[in-house]
Amino acid sequence: MSVIILDTTLRDGEQTPGVSLSVEQKLMIAEALDNLGVDIIEAGTAIASEGEFKAIKAISEAGLKAEICSFGRIKKEDIDAAADAGADSIFMVAPSSDIHINSKFPGKTREDIIQMSIEMVEYAKERGLIVEFGGEDASRADFEFIKKLLKAGEEAGADRLTFTDTVGVLTPERAQQIMSELKKVVKKPVAFHGHDDFGLATANTIFAVKGGADEIHCCVNGLGERAGNAALEEVVMALEYLYGIKTKINKKAIYPTSKLVEKLTRVVVPPNKPIVGENAFTHESGIHTSAVLRDAKTYEPISPEVIGRSRSIVLGKHAGKASVEAIMKELGYKATKEQMQEILKRVKEIGDKGKRVTDADVRAIIETVLQIKRERKVELVDLNVVSGANIMPTASVKLKINGKEYVEAGVGVGPVDAAINAIKRAVKEYADIELVSYHVDAITGGTDALVDVIVQLKKGDKIVTARGARTDIIMASVEAFVEGLNMLL
Amino acid sequence: MSVIILDTTLRDGEQTPGVSLSVEQKLMIAEALDNLGVDIIEAGTAIASEGEFKAIKAISEAGLKAEICSFGRIKKEDIDAAADAGADSIFMVAPSSDIHINSKFPGKTREDIIQMSIEMVEYAKERGLIVEFGGEDASRADFEFIKKLLKAGEEAGADRLTFTDTVGVLTPERAQQIMSELKKVVKKPVAFHGHDDFGLATANTIFAVKGGADEIHCCVNGLGERAGNAALEEVVMALEYLYGIKTKINKKAIYPTSKLVEKLTRVVVPPNKPIVGENAFTHESGIHTSAVLRDAKTYEPISPEVIGRSRSIVLGKHAGKASVEAIMKELGYKATKEQMQEILKRVKEIGDKGKRVTDADVRAIIETVLQIKRERKVELVDLNVVSGANIMPTASVKLKINGKEYVEAGVGVGPVDAAINAIKRAVKEYADIELVSYHVDAITGGTDALVDVIVQLKKGDKIVTARGARTDIIMASVEAFVEGLNMLL
Repeated sequence: MSVIILDTTLRDGEQTPGVSLSVEQKLMIAEALDNLGVDIIEAGTAIASEGEFKAIKAISEAGLKAEICSFGRIKKEDIDAAADAGADSIFMVAPSSDIHINSKFPGKTREDIIQMSIEMVEYAKERGLIVEFGGEDASRADFEFIKKLLKAGEEAGADRLTFTDTVGVLTPERAQQIMSELKKVVKKPVAFHGHDDFGLATANTIFAVKGGADEIHCCVNGLGERAGNAALEEVVMALEYLYGIKTKINKKAIYPTSKLVEKLTRVVVPPNKPIVGENAFTHESGIHTSAVLRDAKTYEPISPEVIGRSRSIVLGKHAGKASVEAIMKELGYKATKEQMQEILKRVKEIGDKGKRVTDADVRAIIETVLQIKRERKVELVDLNVVSGANIMPTASVKLKINGKEYVEAGVGVGPVDAAINAIKRAVKEYADIELVSYHVDAITGGTDALVDVIVQLKKGDKIVTARGARTDIIMASVEAFVEGLNMLL
Repeated sequence: MSVIILDTTLRDGEQTPGVSLSVEQKLMIAEALDNLGVDIIEAGTAIASEGEFKAIKAISEAGLKAEICSFGRIKKEDIDAAADAGADSIFMVAPSSDIHINSKFPGKTREDIIQMSIEMVEYAKERGLIVEFGGEDASRADFEFIKKLLKAGEEAGADRLTFTDTVGVLTPERAQQIMSELKKVVKKPVAFHGHDDFGLATANTIFAVKGGADEIHCCVNGLGERAGNAALEEVVMALEYLYGIKTKINKKAIYPTSKLVEKLTRVVVPPNKPIVGENAFTHESGIHTSAVLRDAKTYEPISPEVIGRSRSIVLGKHAGKASVEAIMKELGYKATKEQMQEILKRVKEIGDKGKRVTDADVRAIIETVLQIKRERKVELVDLNVVSGANIMPTASVKLKINGKEYVEAGVGVGPVDAAINAIKRAVKEYADIELVSYHVDAITGGTDALVDVIVQLKKGDKIVTARGARTDIIMASVEAFVEGLNMLL
């Protein structure tokens, strides 16, 4: 058994408040989704704007394996826009709860909605589209009416019938029951579209499959309006690993796709997001890390490689002996029992003050306690940044790497960006370093307040964190970056 | 029926990689949790560090209504630390899967673990603690062994027995079944501790309650190791609204508590987080917003006031007429049909470029189209900032105030400080303006992320707030300052 996946990233996901993608960006995501192996890409709403129409056209012409779908209402112009854009299919919804009927088609009755739906399904078929027809807000509608509506859609020629939990109020039990009842009413494949308002979208989607859903709607990173749709990565991994139900998803592409979507939509994936969050395969607390280092399975349900990512060990206030030892081994240092106790004590002290412990902090502590004078491979010799109102932010930098000086300049969207770009260029001659994340704690007080910057840098498989703290945000950022470079090189 | 809630924010939540709270911060959170109405506050692991011990002591002495609990292993020193810190109870876990037994107590058999557990439960009771006893990694353990282990704990005097899904591999069905089977084995209350590795923690916790769990472990914002524990706000709202099961939670405190925990732990709540995320009650897309303004229930499962927050309408690329009209009404502006079309067109243009539309953008668009001259008394004509590694941050500025140009220069502890100092000087010739507060939201993403600055300016008795948003922190700060000056002068 294998379930069909319709991916909503470019439609419901793109409706996330604040998200806005250009045609080029949508095409990039569509290509990534195709590579991920989703069966259907809902590429937008062709009628919504010229930009959306163009994006659907471009995606339809890109020669992807997936079926390309446009969202639409039971309106002729929506169907025409979808067909004209060259989409393979339309996911067309009719309001189905009384509250939605009254809000969208004031004065219309349920019977009117059925009649309009029949006409529009027939018209969409005439326009040569595969038709997925659904009732919007079905979970708050009269279920007997939903059955009639979907049955009428099927008889009018719809190829797939969808139940949408538009405001996310279903429970898993109910989702399962609804699907199994719908399977008795219609012969064509039935689909489930869920929302996460109560944190149950993943479970509801899985239970819909248990109830017989042939197709499910999922969105990368769980994007979508309000709390979003069911997260594709959660549903797929749970179906495959916990329920033994196969999908056509290329699991190794899950993490890279999540990262691409995060970058282009600018909706941050929180560290505690299942499967794709920064912490999903990150271990900090002393006891745990020690066990993980001994046997990864101790605290990991699946191996990170499965979804195309790697494990990371983060030191923090709970850092135990084993994790500090692992870092020391990597650095090639050895400590006596007393020195180790002193190192652990100092690491815990930073944590107890409420400050985050970075890899660089731990290294500095180790080196202080062991009285190791470290050759700083990378040294900031000089930095000049100019910016302002009518000036392109520009920075020049002189770095000394292994005794040799590298001079470079860079521009950016702001002075910090310019400074970091200049440094990246200077380092590029020496090694390929990626800035994985850049975080500045909220600044409060005055313009002379201390600015706390934490960066994550990556070289090959290795990721390190480093901190800079100054009253000058540019220098704090540069300090953190250079500190990270010293850990990596 | 009412279910007991143990809140794990200060233990599992505080074990989130990168999170570190000071004693004072933990006390603040404990007080908020008490006000939220949780039954049990797991306040940390007393044995872990001096800081944790002090925090548990301070929380135990704070006179809160909730039971104060310390986490611990089946070790005498862990029990002693919990009792010495003054905790009411200990949540004590024994490794229960073979992989955990071998990793933590190499060479020990299952029988040894039972024997050690009995001794330690008895010892904890001797030390006067309420004892909640659980098997760690129980979901990957032999279930017959778990029954024996928990039964032995009960016979040794444990007051509550806990099943922990340490690596988050349970399904809802299995969680329910396990709880109902455990209820047949032990008479004391049984608890469920879940993890969200597959996105099922909320559903698993709810199904555990359906299976008979008397107590559940939840964490504000779903913090915790890896993908975190079950999110308190999701479980509580789903139990109460979808299942009709009561808790003692003061729902109006849910959102303020989430915000406090976010601020102190610095783990960002993503916009698409159910219940507490920025978007949970935010509406953007044109069609939806229009319907929401007509009847909030159309796209909202619950009313935001219930959890102590309010609805927000965000304008964006999908912004419809109704939402722009709502903002205009607030500002007291009126537009003709043509003007409204022009406003909507310009808002969509920003969106199609892939840019986020802010309220300030929309206000500016409205005022441009309506040709409303908000008398801008202060205008930034020019700004130059130089800074770097061996340079004193210096800025020069040219302001036009009421048509007259003022040129000044200033230095500072950083480039933003220098720019604001220069502006302050330029304005000083005209009026005495004080910068009361300067705030920058946490910056996440990259060095090209949008920086949001809010300033409070004061002139005499009048205080105004203004906002600047740019990818350039200097220009965002200056923009906010100049915007504030315009409101004051």
